[in-house]
Amino acid sequence: MALIVQKYGGTSVGNPDRIKNVARRVAQYRAAGDQIVVVVSAMSGVTDGLIRLSKEITALPSEREMDMLLATGEQQTIALTAIALHSLNVDAVSLTGAQAGIVTDGVHTKAKIQNITPREVHKLLDAGNVVIVAGFQGQTAEGAITTLGRGGSDLTAIALAAALKADLCQIYTDVDGIYTADPRIVPGAQKLPEIAYDELLELAGAGAKVMQLRSVEFAKKFNVIFEVRSSLNENPGTIVKEETTSMEDVVVRGVSLDKNQAKITLFGVPDQPGRAAGIFRALADAAINVDMIVQNASHDGGVRVTDLSFTVDKPDLLKASKVIESLRPTIGFKEAESNENIGKVSVVGVGMRSHSGVAAKMFDVLAHEQVNIDMISTSEIKVSVVIDLAKGETALRALHKAFLE
Amino acid sequence: MALIVQKYGGTSVGNPDRIKNVARRVAQYRAAGDQIVVVVSAMSGVTDGLIRLSKEITALPSEREMDMLLATGEQQTIALTAIALHSLNVDAVSLTGAQAGIVTDGVHTKAKIQNITPREVHKLLDAGNVVIVAGFQGQTAEGAITTLGRGGSDLTAIALAAALKADLCQIYTDVDGIYTADPRIVPGAQKLPEIAYDELLELAGAGAKVMQLRSVEFAKKFNVIFEVRSSLNENPGTIVKEETTSMEDVVVRGVSLDKNQAKITLFGVPDQPGRAAGIFRALADAAINVDMIVQNASHDGGVRVTDLSFTVDKPDLLKASKVIESLRPTIGFKEAESNENIGKVSVVGVGMRSHSGVAAKMFDVLAHEQVNIDMISTSEIKVSVVIDLAKGETALRALHKAFLE
Repeated sequence: MALIVQKYGGTSVGNPDRIKNVARRVAQYRAAGDQIVVVVSAMSGVTDGLIRLSKEITALPSEREMDMLLATGEQQTIALTAIALHSLNVDAVSLTGAQAGIVTDGVHTKAKIQNITPREVHKLLDAGNVVIVAGFQGQTAEGAITTLGRGGSDLTAIALAAALKADLCQIYTDVDGIYTADPRIVPGAQKLPEIAYDELLELAGAGAKVMQLRSVEFAKKFNVIFEVRSSLNENPGTIVKEETTSMEDVVVRGVSLDKNQAKITLFGVPDQPGRAAGIFRALADAAINVDMIVQNASHDGGVRVTDLSFTVDKPDLLKASKVIESLRPTIGFKEAESNENIGKVSVVGVGMRSHSGVAAKMFDVLAHEQVNIDMISTSEIKVSVVIDLAKGETALRALHKAFLE
Repeated sequence: MALIVQKYGGTSVGNPDRIKNVARRVAQYRAAGDQIVVVVSAMSGVTDGLIRLSKEITALPSEREMDMLLATGEQQTIALTAIALHSLNVDAVSLTGAQAGIVTDGVHTKAKIQNITPREVHKLLDAGNVVIVAGFQGQTAEGAITTLGRGGSDLTAIALAAALKADLCQIYTDVDGIYTADPRIVPGAQKLPEIAYDELLELAGAGAKVMQLRSVEFAKKFNVIFEVRSSLNENPGTIVKEETTSMEDVVVRGVSLDKNQAKITLFGVPDQPGRAAGIFRALADAAINVDMIVQNASHDGGVRVTDLSFTVDKPDLLKASKVIESLRPTIGFKEAESNENIGKVSVVGVGMRSHSGVAAKMFDVLAHEQVNIDMISTSEIKVSVVIDLAKGETALRALHKAFLE
């Protein structure tokens, strides 16, 4: 008898019929004799509808009250899922995040899980129930309702799997698993049978929108093995786990294209200690996430100066440009330039650690496709380049062909 | 500085604009320096929508899970009401029933309040907040979410007013208060400045749909004085309180017409001890509520037999008829007859206790209108008669004119 945690996203529980489908799948697993904990999101559209209601009242609602409001979405789904299981003669009990013992800090709308006391979950499982837990939510030690922010339901499932020492954690979604590249762009993309946490982190960070980074980071930290699979069919998905030696046989696990970055370049920054720190501290204070940073070798221009480029999320570009402009007197750069028409192409794989020449091969492939490289950034298991947005998909396909087909 | 509990029903908080109106009214009271606790229902339509979703899954959802589902309706309203108060720069905090310390028994969908520990409410009030509490809900001592059934939000307000020793409890609704008769039927109906608990109980029991009996019973038991008034204007409403001697100066406080009753008559019931008990125990076991019971004097028919009439709620008639038919062998009555075309007309007033002749005057008025009386039932402060449904409104108007104009 195994203990399985299954998580179903908003599309999978989007209406009563889909909730009945989820219940049928859960009932199958239950009939095989396993203990099942189900984590569900709000029905798709419910959360957006609640946000719209709040915006009709005020543009800037309090975060505590938004948590109180939004937590009702998942609470509705757990009740309906329990009702659907009952109609299949499966014993089931729903629990809110608070009732399931999920304790968070008090940072409303993006709370962090502090600990989980799964006493009630264990008790109900041992009594023969499927236990259905509201994703995305918890409560503070003082009893205030909190939500975990984007990707919160995945996090609930993975954290519960860790706390319950579950044998298996399945993240059901509307795709079949994790692919070597986005199949909408690369027709030859293949589903991966398994992938290392670090590879998934690099791919997610490189724009592959499978899961939020924090859930994968949590899983890595607590060594929770999970499977990403589809709620629409019975196909096996992709197992995400700690790196194994056999994974190194594959040099590149996947390639990705991130179209959501913009680039800012500062020309003529005086090459003195503290200038770069001043720039990135100001951006961090404005809650702007900086991804790639490249600084060219300094050159002479009266005093020694250098050029500095970095990328930010496209929606943050305007805000970032304003921060940069406000720094001109203190930093003393000559000129700032921004460019939204860029794409970031990455190749990812733990096998790179023991194989040299990945970057060289990547640049060869891009040169052969007449793609000009604008910025380069590397990690132990990833090489990313910034290129012209218009060449993004061509570059992705060429890299997939060269490394993965 | 007074402590005021205000309750707003589903229509009063039916959309974001109405919630803003409620917030403006609350802000006015708060600006006068009073401490305010606001109890709200679900936005009108929300509860019905959730019930519809559950019915799409199964016809008979579990009551525990229906409580989990429906409790979200009020939770959404408290959050939106708090957000609306913030936008008026009024400090406000929302609390679910559980967070407000409302502990109930475990009878899901119609739980009874066992006790209220308003520590959190007091703490938040003392810190300068308006406290917004979700009506209709509580939790068991074990932490399961419960709902209080029909009229539950009124009950939450009155029970909180008792627990907080509030100076004033206001029940805001879409009517101006309690009237001498239904103004849609009787054009001369007047709003009552005050009414005794017992009178309101008899009027509610007699079909006037102002408030559920249990909320009024609770208020009477704990001597909570409350005001029924409109959320759409500033008119004073009706104060509901313990009977005072001055109330006896008015013989009849109000008249009502209940069109929702049906009558069953059993002819030729053997006049032996235990026969009536057998009938009404069987009906009670089937959860059928019996209102009026009339037994005629027995007469000779071989053995001595009697005729027995009683009324039930119209939707229960079919079920009641089946129960009665199943009793024929054991009870041994000759014939059963049912009639849906009846109306119950009642006159109510604590002044009746010290004034004789109310019944006689009532029968005179009805005779003058050519209304035939079918059944009669009296209490200390009420006389009810069953008549032909078609004559109901005529009778009500005539009685209002004779007693109240």
